[in-house]
Amino acid sequence: MDLENLLREDFDKIEQYLPREQPFEAGWLELNINENPYPPSRVILDEIKMAINEKLRLYPEPTGKDLRKMISSVFLVDKKTLTNPNNIFIDNGADGVLENIMKTFINPGDQIIYFYPTYGLYKTLSLIYKAKKKEIKLNDDFSIPESAYSLKGKLIFINSPNNPNGKAFSNDVILKICKYFPGIVVIDETYGDFCQTTALPLLKEFKNLIIVRTFSNSFSLASMRIGYAVANDKIIKAMNKVRLPYNVSYLGQIAAISCIKHRDLVFKQNHKIISERKRLSETLSKYNGISVEPSDANFIFVKFSDKSICLKFIWDLKEKKVLVRHISQPGLYQYMRITINTPDNNNKFLDIFDELTKKYL
Amino acid sequence: MDLENLLREDFDKIEQYLPREQPFEAGWLELNINENPYPPSRVILDEIKMAINEKLRLYPEPTGKDLRKMISSVFLVDKKTLTNPNNIFIDNGADGVLENIMKTFINPGDQIIYFYPTYGLYKTLSLIYKAKKKEIKLNDDFSIPESAYSLKGKLIFINSPNNPNGKAFSNDVILKICKYFPGIVVIDETYGDFCQTTALPLLKEFKNLIIVRTFSNSFSLASMRIGYAVANDKIIKAMNKVRLPYNVSYLGQIAAISCIKHRDLVFKQNHKIISERKRLSETLSKYNGISVEPSDANFIFVKFSDKSICLKFIWDLKEKKVLVRHISQPGLYQYMRITINTPDNNNKFLDIFDELTKKYL
Repeated sequence: MDLENLLREDFDKIEQYLPREQPFEAGWLELNINENPYPPSRVILDEIKMAINEKLRLYPEPTGKDLRKMISSVFLVDKKTLTNPNNIFIDNGADGVLENIMKTFINPGDQIIYFYPTYGLYKTLSLIYKAKKKEIKLNDDFSIPESAYSLKGKLIFINSPNNPNGKAFSNDVILKICKYFPGIVVIDETYGDFCQTTALPLLKEFKNLIIVRTFSNSFSLASMRIGYAVANDKIIKAMNKVRLPYNVSYLGQIAAISCIKHRDLVFKQNHKIISERKRLSETLSKYNGISVEPSDANFIFVKFSDKSICLKFIWDLKEKKVLVRHISQPGLYQYMRITINTPDNNNKFLDIFDELTKKYL
Repeated sequence: MDLENLLREDFDKIEQYLPREQPFEAGWLELNINENPYPPSRVILDEIKMAINEKLRLYPEPTGKDLRKMISSVFLVDKKTLTNPNNIFIDNGADGVLENIMKTFINPGDQIIYFYPTYGLYKTLSLIYKAKKKEIKLNDDFSIPESAYSLKGKLIFINSPNNPNGKAFSNDVILKICKYFPGIVVIDETYGDFCQTTALPLLKEFKNLIIVRTFSNSFSLASMRIGYAVANDKIIKAMNKVRLPYNVSYLGQIAAISCIKHRDLVFKQNHKIISERKRLSETLSKYNGISVEPSDANFIFVKFSDKSICLKFIWDLKEKKVLVRHISQPGLYQYMRITINTPDNNNKFLDIFDELTKKYL
């Protein structure tokens, strides 16, 4: 048997989405992945522990009923948006939700639009689902170019706040796209809880809009793989038709419910991240030849006047066991993306960074 | 916007895989879903609890490295099969593995073959991935008809032990299919740990063979969504290319590792299920007009001489809060599928069943 002949068409063209570099020993400061530095609160951990019982033998509730109820009645209720459990779809992380959107709407050859730079999975999914893909280059300040408002296509992915620069797009911009775009508009608000901007209120007006959110980052549950979509109930019904019957683990559902119940504790931790984001941005901006993009996320995108200096910083940081994200792609070589951590760890990073400025700037 | 026009082609043709009926109050005896009646042992629950800590904030190890090592070095080592971690692929339940196989190999229009009756997801996946599907009717004794050995296609799904009848196909049969079938042969051994028959040893000989297994049933972890595939490393590498980057939860990986570590406890529980399967089969076979199919799984398929009597039993059982599975499909109306439970619950079922025999037989 020749395996190559059995693989699906265009298999070689698929570019695998590769997770970030991960050190396998302790002692590293990992600022290269956008995890929350604060673990779930003790009370949340205790509630998850309580659920480790004889029920583990059972299949999870297949529709995430209790979690959908909790999201709609508690989390969404003050967001001026759709608040019926039938407007919510649960899947295996935001990534699972994004893939299900592909399965629901995309035929081979359908036009998918996303911006550059942005989250890499949109491209990978477009390749896997054999869509035609159009990458629209963002302006130098990472805003959406005027040309985007006349685009046609089946689906557009918008990451807001956008990874890697961190800025959320305003609802004026999203509204304009929803109005003119003839297909499905997906706003991926993976980092949406680190700012006040959200497209959730637009859902009442636009039936072609899907908002994707996750418990991974703002709720410190990356390990558990819980994401959700909010949209028109017809879209949610269609998405349910093509998902796997038991797509989300029982403990994931329990953990997410507990996080919403104790959201005040969660938001208190996130406030610290937001104030640290401000502090790091201000501190780093003071160096000559360094600027920091405005961020609404739990990371900042730091620009060096020179690509080679940026790389020297990254190498030296790595020698000190500090990992930041370098995106080796056109136009991005002189940037590093830094995830906001606890004040202590941020100080550790700033100290090392300051040493390097003396060496290289 | 007209949503119907935005849905992918053939959306209406997809038949959603619907999970079984689930009562929402306590007090029901659910013999309609093939869950393990024994919860994970105390020591396994404790090891999962130990993992409920600050690590929940982190993304899971993306390749299931430790779990793959554990499966290959401990679980597979005495199975005369491939035993390298690179021969193992982890996903979100056996269902997740099956879907990833589709993503790896299937183009729209490719021929997929599966038997009838069998696990319903093969049909649903064929529809979602727009494959041509061919359902081959099993013989009346649920054996594979001779015609199956000359079939051509891209992929064949074989559930062994087969749901709903419960019998595993012998390796002579599987070997013959592997030899003649020009595409990928998928043996779904979801219920494979309830018998000695497994196609795992054939992996050394056949590069087109994929064995799918799960921790849901025999390891009592249905809640956690952990399945895996064992196959040639080239197949595993290809499957990794199209899966989502973080497809399996951290706690799922921890729980599965713990189950393998304490497999002796798990197998002891499963021995009880196997001996109860024998007892139930023998007891039910004694009634006039009732026969029981030979089973290698954790369920039995019980045949009534008359369809309407079968339905009367099912209705009356339901009135007594006992659920069994009725598969309302051609040729299967006179059967009920019963999941093996604990001796006490099985006795409860047998008592009610015996009453009904006096009423209806």
